[in-house]
Amino acid sequence: MCEQIISAILRTLKSILRLGDTTMDNNKTTITCQSSSRPYAIVIQENCFHQIVKQLSPAQKYLIICDSNVKPLWGDKLQLAITKANISCALISFPAGEANKNLQTFSDLHEQIALRLDRQSTIITLGGGVTGDMGGFVASTYMRGISFLQIPTSLLAMVDSSVGGKLGVDTSIGKNAVGVFNNPIKVLIDPSLLLTLPKNYFIDGMAEVIKHAFLSGEEYITFLEDNVAGILAMDLSLLSTLIIQSVQFKVMIVEQDEKESGLRKILNYGHTIGHALEETLGYSSIPHGNAVAIGINAANYLALKCGLLSEAAFLRIQNLLQQYHLPIFLSDLGLTGDADQLFHFLHNDKKNQDDQVVMILLEGLGKPIISTTQTTLQIKEAINYVIKNRSLS
Amino acid sequence: MCEQIISAILRTLKSILRLGDTTMDNNKTTITCQSSSRPYAIVIQENCFHQIVKQLSPAQKYLIICDSNVKPLWGDKLQLAITKANISCALISFPAGEANKNLQTFSDLHEQIALRLDRQSTIITLGGGVTGDMGGFVASTYMRGISFLQIPTSLLAMVDSSVGGKLGVDTSIGKNAVGVFNNPIKVLIDPSLLLTLPKNYFIDGMAEVIKHAFLSGEEYITFLEDNVAGILAMDLSLLSTLIIQSVQFKVMIVEQDEKESGLRKILNYGHTIGHALEETLGYSSIPHGNAVAIGINAANYLALKCGLLSEAAFLRIQNLLQQYHLPIFLSDLGLTGDADQLFHFLHNDKKNQDDQVVMILLEGLGKPIISTTQTTLQIKEAINYVIKNRSLS
Repeated sequence: MCEQIISAILRTLKSILRLGDTTMDNNKTTITCQSSSRPYAIVIQENCFHQIVKQLSPAQKYLIICDSNVKPLWGDKLQLAITKANISCALISFPAGEANKNLQTFSDLHEQIALRLDRQSTIITLGGGVTGDMGGFVASTYMRGISFLQIPTSLLAMVDSSVGGKLGVDTSIGKNAVGVFNNPIKVLIDPSLLLTLPKNYFIDGMAEVIKHAFLSGEEYITFLEDNVAGILAMDLSLLSTLIIQSVQFKVMIVEQDEKESGLRKILNYGHTIGHALEETLGYSSIPHGNAVAIGINAANYLALKCGLLSEAAFLRIQNLLQQYHLPIFLSDLGLTGDADQLFHFLHNDKKNQDDQVVMILLEGLGKPIISTTQTTLQIKEAINYVIKNRSLS
Repeated sequence: MCEQIISAILRTLKSILRLGDTTMDNNKTTITCQSSSRPYAIVIQENCFHQIVKQLSPAQKYLIICDSNVKPLWGDKLQLAITKANISCALISFPAGEANKNLQTFSDLHEQIALRLDRQSTIITLGGGVTGDMGGFVASTYMRGISFLQIPTSLLAMVDSSVGGKLGVDTSIGKNAVGVFNNPIKVLIDPSLLLTLPKNYFIDGMAEVIKHAFLSGEEYITFLEDNVAGILAMDLSLLSTLIIQSVQFKVMIVEQDEKESGLRKILNYGHTIGHALEETLGYSSIPHGNAVAIGINAANYLALKCGLLSEAAFLRIQNLLQQYHLPIFLSDLGLTGDADQLFHFLHNDKKNQDDQVVMILLEGLGKPIISTTQTTLQIKEAINYVIKNRSLS
């Protein structure tokens, strides 16, 4: 009883501290994310990348971790800007690609950092989701954890992986099978970095944006429907609005359930079958966002057949995914899949509980539920729908 | 200001929760350790190992991690006892020895666990410091962290490494260079397990016990001086008292400074030069406790020469270490060392700050200080004293 009262007081204190989560100052938006250890700021501001030096401390040592694609594009420039300001800054890189997000690269990065940093140093992770996840995991385990600053360069990393503290690497067990929950000291998001991002990576990131919209509701969905052309034309003002909405939505979810014991599971909407597609086809064969888009379509088919989702909503979601050039069937990518193999992987998903497949389904737009009641037959039908491109009937 | 008030309220709440840290019930002593995430219990009880099943939940899956020495001695028995009670329990082991506490074994263990556990499962780490540190690190990173229960089987692990949440593995950078801070759900200490521990391992663990005594003060020192014969004869009642005193002392320190930003550094007493000895001679050449004992003697020599420690206290410490058959000079082990190489390693110790060697010195018994003012010459003299066995003058 005593513990319950104390717990209630702590919750109240937490909500006091939480007031004023988002602040806006000219073109700069700061969203504060509360976590069990400490709050951290996510700053969204055009061109903030070029002013990062102002935020660093000359007394500290810095080290940039990036991949081989980002190094020539942004990494070398950032290191030069920092060292020009007489601040110590090293840079290490690893070969780009999800296939390199593994314990071997993790180990190599640790060896490369070697004795360059002390416990007071800060690692800057500069790149997409792979860099943020793996670089953050390296920082969280170097000398049992030093600070890190996240600078996402892909849309996927800006709206999704840089928020929420999920860090780690893939193993033969599965995606992100080894890792920790830990947060950066700050996330700096500069939407203008997206202008150099290859278009297919941008489209891929839109799958997570659209996922957030379907989970959050009408307002965000309408924004995406009304601004297809402008967003695809990389209008920076629209991109900033989109990033702010997605980050605010994700922060709201992870603040309530940091370690994914309940509510946060809804962010796996589209990911259950999406992960299975990536694992059976190989990470290099299907981009993450493409897999999620097809996974969303499969989950919606299941929700439709279970009588949860209306056909109108089902078709509206398909339409929005297609407007952003995302696939809804495996055949849209010219790929084929094995239904039995996919189902086998679903059963080994780490998000399962008591060997029951956990699916996130929509009861309506903005109304996700965590469902474990679907039958094996229903799941197999949904898989067949997206891999065999069957008609709705 | 508002944050300061809230912080004060939180401290008060913390102290309320902390009341009754140690409870005793017949032969069972429970010490509760507060941590930033949640409190956990350290239970010290003779023969509790043989009643562990009572504490497990039939609804959960368990997996024991132990080394190749502990497997035939205790691991297989524990697995059998648990599975006989119809509770799911797997066992995986790794080759014994500090040399195997590395990222390769860490990776192998993750592969071995593979799909045997889900997020609700619990890992049981059964063994000495290597198993506790590495097994706890595996548990803390499997699916971003699952629960683990620590059962230390060596004196070193019982009084030191199983308390305080330091987990990790060694790399070429240094000892425990990759890891995290995280705590088990419970630590179960059964002093009777020490009866099968090889005598040299027991003696080695006594170095950390004696370290705790010198750091805490007269009462604990006198207990160790008065009971040399009984403790060396493995009197279980004396061993229980000794373990309780050491755990209480360590809990008091780590509760006040979980992440080693200040006070906790005092636990590195004897470890600065101790680590340098292990790294230059090789972990397999000198047992950890032996290195710490010589490190304590070197730190005391430095304190003596800096005018901090009296000669009487200096000699009293040497005497107690020798009574417990611990070395105080490298020559006691028939080893020789390279002073320059040792000094080089000292400068790369991860506990350094601003390239200044941090040493823990005694101003008197039970009066440690964190010192960075000693000169290079003084440190070199202290190193020469223990490796060349020079006389005091």
